[in-house]
Amino acid sequence: MITKEQTSQYLQDNKQRFLDELFDLLRIPSVSADKKFKTDVLKAADFLKTKFEAAGAENVEVCETAGNPIVYADKIIDPSLPTVLVYGHYDVQPADPYELWESEPFNPVIKNGKIVARGSADDKGQMYIHVKAFEMMMQNGGVPCNVKFMIEGEEEVGSESLETYIKENTEKLKADIIVISDTSMIANEHPSMAVSLKGLSYLEVEITGPNRDLHSGVYGGAVANPINVLCRMIASLQDENKKITVPGFYDKVVELTNEERKKMNLAPFSLDDFKSDLAIDDVEGEAGYNTLERQGIRPTLDVNGIWGGYTGEGAKTVLPSKAYAKISMRLVPDQNHREITELFKKHFEDIAPDSVKVDVKPHHGATPVVSSTDSDAYRAAEDAFEKVWGKRPIPTREGGSIPIVALFKEVLKLDSILMGFGLNSDAIHSPNESFGVENYLKGIETVALFHQRFAETAKK
Amino acid sequence: MITKEQTSQYLQDNKQRFLDELFDLLRIPSVSADKKFKTDVLKAADFLKTKFEAAGAENVEVCETAGNPIVYADKIIDPSLPTVLVYGHYDVQPADPYELWESEPFNPVIKNGKIVARGSADDKGQMYIHVKAFEMMMQNGGVPCNVKFMIEGEEEVGSESLETYIKENTEKLKADIIVISDTSMIANEHPSMAVSLKGLSYLEVEITGPNRDLHSGVYGGAVANPINVLCRMIASLQDENKKITVPGFYDKVVELTNEERKKMNLAPFSLDDFKSDLAIDDVEGEAGYNTLERQGIRPTLDVNGIWGGYTGEGAKTVLPSKAYAKISMRLVPDQNHREITELFKKHFEDIAPDSVKVDVKPHHGATPVVSSTDSDAYRAAEDAFEKVWGKRPIPTREGGSIPIVALFKEVLKLDSILMGFGLNSDAIHSPNESFGVENYLKGIETVALFHQRFAETAKK
Repeated sequence: MITKEQTSQYLQDNKQRFLDELFDLLRIPSVSADKKFKTDVLKAADFLKTKFEAAGAENVEVCETAGNPIVYADKIIDPSLPTVLVYGHYDVQPADPYELWESEPFNPVIKNGKIVARGSADDKGQMYIHVKAFEMMMQNGGVPCNVKFMIEGEEEVGSESLETYIKENTEKLKADIIVISDTSMIANEHPSMAVSLKGLSYLEVEITGPNRDLHSGVYGGAVANPINVLCRMIASLQDENKKITVPGFYDKVVELTNEERKKMNLAPFSLDDFKSDLAIDDVEGEAGYNTLERQGIRPTLDVNGIWGGYTGEGAKTVLPSKAYAKISMRLVPDQNHREITELFKKHFEDIAPDSVKVDVKPHHGATPVVSSTDSDAYRAAEDAFEKVWGKRPIPTREGGSIPIVALFKEVLKLDSILMGFGLNSDAIHSPNESFGVENYLKGIETVALFHQRFAETAKK
Repeated sequence: MITKEQTSQYLQDNKQRFLDELFDLLRIPSVSADKKFKTDVLKAADFLKTKFEAAGAENVEVCETAGNPIVYADKIIDPSLPTVLVYGHYDVQPADPYELWESEPFNPVIKNGKIVARGSADDKGQMYIHVKAFEMMMQNGGVPCNVKFMIEGEEEVGSESLETYIKENTEKLKADIIVISDTSMIANEHPSMAVSLKGLSYLEVEITGPNRDLHSGVYGGAVANPINVLCRMIASLQDENKKITVPGFYDKVVELTNEERKKMNLAPFSLDDFKSDLAIDDVEGEAGYNTLERQGIRPTLDVNGIWGGYTGEGAKTVLPSKAYAKISMRLVPDQNHREITELFKKHFEDIAPDSVKVDVKPHHGATPVVSSTDSDAYRAAEDAFEKVWGKRPIPTREGGSIPIVALFKEVLKLDSILMGFGLNSDAIHSPNESFGVENYLKGIETVALFHQRFAETAKK
């Protein structure tokens, strides 16, 4: 049995090494979206293998897949004890735009108490917490329950190989709970745990007007301009209250009770801080809901990219043949991403004027997830957080999607608990991504104490 | 005095050489927008110098400017006779997208009776008509009036050096009329001459939302997305009747009389042909006006380019910090492009929600122009067209802008007549630009006969 005194002491003794090891991992540019980093992706997987073995894990394996390998490791001490399956990912988002980084994205530095590097928070830092918590437990009497690790390398590009992998390894991956650290908490003074994740429908649209680029002087005003039409169509997807106008879009949205809304609004939140962090004068979102609710419990629609016509220096008076946009919708229970994708596609085709042709290509989707706060694992996590951070975590509802959580539920029949140690200010997916040194180190303690508590209380 | 018999004969005898020379000129990629073609730009200017000298012009000069040189040449036979000043340009639009060309853009070929090459119609082919018409006159008794040439190399990038040049050379450029061949006619069976040109206001807008790119899951729906906002703002610039909503925009628009509208609608026009040429199922434009009117007499607004967020392969769930668009308005008499630019800027800033910041940068503008059909020069051109094409030209109103026409009026106090020999199907500014062999050759005859007629009839 590992105690808070032991985790504190071990952390004290190994702090610098824990940081050094994470820095080594962050120096590997394991960008999954770009094939030129393939060698680094493999290097990151090998790095983990070495560290798992050094920490005393068994069955450590860099599992080949059609894409990037999945690192598996476990320590089974007694089949009659509960089993925790840890999921994480070692791949990272591309670092561009490079010019906006204040330090090298793959040369980690500590600045204002935070580790600045691509992947520091998403997800190398958070994932490596589990590797070091495992070591901590092993060095302090051994793990108190069975532990399995499954660390993938394609999370940032859709986790395709993972799906095949878990379908082929349901027996090997048997567990009682999945633990994932890939989300954020409200603040270090206000630890929190995400209890819901949004789903996703991501599409690309192409509008074709005339069969060739035209001179905007000769044809402008007489022929539909696909950019103007696209803008009109996109603008019409939300009404003046910022409600999404796709027919049927809200049909399956589960409205929270007033009680639930009240509870989620207990989370500390300062609109002024939120605005000043983003340097905006005002927020904008669905009428009737506040910012926390818009982020957590309401479905949303965003254009993630748009392009068409002349985008170089200076002026070109072209009326282009085509215009494009990438559009995504974040979904909430019980919206089904396949249904929403179909509804969107049909609606977008319906609203197109006869003057253009429309092509809607679905990219990918994710099912929204809610996890229960009434479970052994959730309570064990609450206890662990309280011991390390001094407060029980607030349950929050997250705007992000982790598509594999729904997949785990579907294929492995397992719930996930989301012990996120990041902060919204970590700027994941953006330049100057960072992760608090305190978050990293306290995370290690929290995870070790979670395993201890879960081993003690979980009904097997 | 040169007669139709003489022009026909001379054309007959020199047809192949006229084509060969134009092909040589078209082989020089004199793209003004891209500095890497600077040597070719100079080569094109030198080519013209050689040809002017060979044809018997005097004072031939490649005039240095801050940008690309202006080729000047003249033949003054008698100061008491009228003087024609020919304007044209030897620079061309960039050829990209190269992959859409069916033959090399700078390796001219004849296909279906048309010369296919970048610049074939805009403006090398049309400009070279004047060089060969000059030769034709010189070889058939000499020019019947004084002729001056001013051929610039920056028309496709805003004619900046030309403005300085004409201001510094008002005496040298003294003339009675300016002749420009840089427009198109309705059809070879329906010769026409443009009697009005639209003005232009070209701007670039930048919308800034949050101070950094955000994760669209975490922030989507709670923070204004600059792309969505930009689409909304652009969509709102036109109402459901496609009227432009910028306050004051129509205040100075001169409405045509019913008589004038009737007259311009005598021009042969087939909506079916128009649609099938562009492969569109329907046209779109301002309610209450037909396609010809929308093109010729109504002010318009087009987005020429739009960009923001992630535009690469696949999906990235980003809520971008910025979104951009290039927007241009074509103006009609008596709209003033500086006023319209100001009105647009103010309106665009006004309609921006507090959730974003807006920056509107004016690019450039042009004054709309109407030329009288009641002048010696216009009538001389009508006569020349009739002799060569068998019909008097229909006066048309063009959607394009030739900013320097207004500049000539302002600085040189000279009217221009637009003897355009192109066709709309020439695809100027687009891949596979072409110019009819017949248009080129008959153009040479028309211009020679115009000079003859003008010399005979113009009041000096």
